[in-house]
Amino acid sequence: MGWHYAALEERLARLGHLEGALAILRWDTAVCMPEAASAARGEQIATLERFAHELLTADETGELLAGADAESDLDPWQRANLREARRRFRRARALEPALVEALARATNACEMTWREARKRSDFALLRPFLEEVVRLVREAARMTGAALDLEPYDALLDEHQPDLRDALVAPLLDRLAAALPAILEDAIGANRPFLAPRGPFPIETQKKLAERLMARLGFDFRAGRLDTSTHPFCGGIPADIRITSRWRDDEVTSALMAVLHETGHALYEAGLPRRWMGQPVGEARGIVVHESQSLLLERQICRSPAFLRFLAGELEATFGPDPAWTSANLEALWHRVERGFIRVDADEVSYPLHVILRWRLEKALLAGDLAVADLPAAWAEGMRALLGVTPPDDARGCLQDIHWSVGAFGYFPCYTLGALLAAQLAEAARRDLPDLEKEVARGEIGPLLGWLRAKVHGQGSLPRFDELVRDATGGPLAVEPFLAHLRARYLERPRAG
Amino acid sequence: MGWHYAALEERLARLGHLEGALAILRWDTAVCMPEAASAARGEQIATLERFAHELLTADETGELLAGADAESDLDPWQRANLREARRRFRRARALEPALVEALARATNACEMTWREARKRSDFALLRPFLEEVVRLVREAARMTGAALDLEPYDALLDEHQPDLRDALVAPLLDRLAAALPAILEDAIGANRPFLAPRGPFPIETQKKLAERLMARLGFDFRAGRLDTSTHPFCGGIPADIRITSRWRDDEVTSALMAVLHETGHALYEAGLPRRWMGQPVGEARGIVVHESQSLLLERQICRSPAFLRFLAGELEATFGPDPAWTSANLEALWHRVERGFIRVDADEVSYPLHVILRWRLEKALLAGDLAVADLPAAWAEGMRALLGVTPPDDARGCLQDIHWSVGAFGYFPCYTLGALLAAQLAEAARRDLPDLEKEVARGEIGPLLGWLRAKVHGQGSLPRFDELVRDATGGPLAVEPFLAHLRARYLERPRAG
Repeated sequence: MGWHYAALEERLARLGHLEGALAILRWDTAVCMPEAASAARGEQIATLERFAHELLTADETGELLAGADAESDLDPWQRANLREARRRFRRARALEPALVEALARATNACEMTWREARKRSDFALLRPFLEEVVRLVREAARMTGAALDLEPYDALLDEHQPDLRDALVAPLLDRLAAALPAILEDAIGANRPFLAPRGPFPIETQKKLAERLMARLGFDFRAGRLDTSTHPFCGGIPADIRITSRWRDDEVTSALMAVLHETGHALYEAGLPRRWMGQPVGEARGIVVHESQSLLLERQICRSPAFLRFLAGELEATFGPDPAWTSANLEALWHRVERGFIRVDADEVSYPLHVILRWRLEKALLAGDLAVADLPAAWAEGMRALLGVTPPDDARGCLQDIHWSVGAFGYFPCYTLGALLAAQLAEAARRDLPDLEKEVARGEIGPLLGWLRAKVHGQGSLPRFDELVRDATGGPLAVEPFLAHLRARYLERPRAG
Repeated sequence: MGWHYAALEERLARLGHLEGALAILRWDTAVCMPEAASAARGEQIATLERFAHELLTADETGELLAGADAESDLDPWQRANLREARRRFRRARALEPALVEALARATNACEMTWREARKRSDFALLRPFLEEVVRLVREAARMTGAALDLEPYDALLDEHQPDLRDALVAPLLDRLAAALPAILEDAIGANRPFLAPRGPFPIETQKKLAERLMARLGFDFRAGRLDTSTHPFCGGIPADIRITSRWRDDEVTSALMAVLHETGHALYEAGLPRRWMGQPVGEARGIVVHESQSLLLERQICRSPAFLRFLAGELEATFGPDPAWTSANLEALWHRVERGFIRVDADEVSYPLHVILRWRLEKALLAGDLAVADLPAAWAEGMRALLGVTPPDDARGCLQDIHWSVGAFGYFPCYTLGALLAAQLAEAARRDLPDLEKEVARGEIGPLLGWLRAKVHGQGSLPRFDELVRDATGGPLAVEPFLAHLRARYLERPRAG
């Protein structure tokens, strides 16, 4: 290992510490910060981001990258670290500072307007702001694509999931678009009546149960916390993982499932290779893989009939007897399928249809084939075609998501590709771990976690995305395991008893 | 205002945002951080400190300072801002990086060893580490003094309280050393028996009472919080002030007084001039002034008979009837005076004697008149001479404080000068606000807070230390108001009834 590579690692470590500090500040903003601190916090974060950007894009970083590349004795992890560092460097240098600033200003204004527009269900209010964001994102995608030798939309996908291309996304989503409407129809027909659990469920008790379940699933509270915020998230750094949920004392199921979802993200972060903490190769492999880990835990494991048997006992032990605490009733409750308007409330059968709509529309917006002004009509038309429902207003239509307003194009497909990968990983894990279901029925996922650590978590960003999928599951990303999972869970379900 | 000054302010603002981020990270370290994150957090903080140091000490900062100095149209606040910025720049450039690094390493090692040595009461364990720290601090004081044209010990005092000199400290502490032993003797003779309040005091209830009192005293919870940590402190930034205390359910008084003390610090921070937030002139005037604000609130106001009448009612309303909740009993409890070994447990009569001991010893250590090896004997001798007691071991002697192990020499005098200033400010406030005692008896300090905002808080670092004291109180810092306060409170007290 020559001095260029060593100096590069030292520089990347500084960058990692800055990003770690930013992760804690963002957590604090969502969990602790009093309202009057908002402007000052914005400045703190912008200042740290600017230091990070300057450190990454400095000419010296480029010289170290070039020098390290010529050093012949790097091991595979170091080579991959160099590759990932170069990817960031090139992306960060692709945009002129003036465009970065214009984007920051435009997305900031658009986000604030979006909050108001959604509240009033007033798309006309948002329109000029969103037009400006689309214009700038289009320009940024073109420039980044030119720098990384990618098509513009691929440059956007690649930002969230390195090496993801629309050539992979399109056939997968097209197949889902073809298969899901029929499954959705049948799944709705197979819905079973259920008893709603009767509260109140004291919030402190819910939190204690959540913490007990997290610990049982392998979350280490010496290296992390559970707190409260408006929207659940998983933040922090691998040595300090910070999950949040939100709580209502009249309802227990959604907060609990949010915790289990975030615990999936947390276990991924916790299992990243310690030796490479703070270096690019030590980070998670991308948003698709991250989402696969939360969905694997929440959807594949914790909503499975086996785990619901365990969970029914935990709920009864925690909140006392209730006829709702049977695994059959929890299945009927948690496997309910509906045609809804809202993506974040969607069940796992209809969810990909919400994603497919957004993926089609964002590509059309960026290609100039769809004007922002025509978005509400196109949205309504897409909802009818894909889901068979018509949103009653724009708040429950094209104004529901924050993503486009903050410039996050190319992000939506990651949710559904994550669901595909979760199903594919679960299928592979069941092959490798014949006792998995029995263990899950006891609330025991240690062996599964060991499998995930070997196949996914501990790999960090050493493999490319497609290599990780193939090495872990034996094949490329596909729709079949996901469709098989939906058919098994939603079309072949027992009656509640 | 020319462009040099404007560019300097912009640079100082970035520095301020970095320091604000550091303040939140330090709060998080004490309040939230899980144990496994300790090493990573150390790296995050060191990284941000390094960016701040580089930004401050850059040649460009020096050029902007020089250019701004030549700009003729600066107003008094801008001039003072320039003066304070130059002070920091010169101090930060005074030490060679190698010495800064050596100090950081030595104090880090010494602090860790100190924790163990105190636990085992084993001075021999600490000795070589403390010797190294003393050696390096001596060198740093000499270099900083040379750069700032100060005597070495003055260079240390000046770090904590700008413009404080031993020529001011020495006569004040010498007068206290002469006057206090007799007052202490008489005050102990005037101790009254008291009833200990009977718990348990549920911690959530204590916190709610503390928050109610904080709000009543003017703390704004839209711009701050109260949390829990091992040692009470006041952190954050003026728009986001973070107080902590520690709680025991068998005892209510010490946690409450800690909150009131920290609230004094908080009200100072909250009252700093908003226009100058994040600039050097917008910061608190130094540790002596800061300590005067916490002691003014806690000792002068909240432990006064008038406030104790109000507090007795609050305690009874919160925890139910108890014969201990009378103002006379609370006075007997909270005005108890003792000859103790431990500085942080000391009452306000004996506290300065603990400080005087440390001030004499640290000057002797730095001057080379006292060897570190001889510290335990010198400590015991000093305790006998000043307080008339002999520590049973070094844990309750020269190992009790963290300050020297972390390189904080010249800090101890600030505590007692803060107590002097608190008494002097309280005396001046009573002159200007004839209804003060009546208001305090109702738990109302709005008018006092208005007075402090005008005289102290809102001044930021515009006046020099001596100017602030003279403008606020009409004279230079003196011992008489403090001694008069002690005589009135401890020698002329009523019997508990």
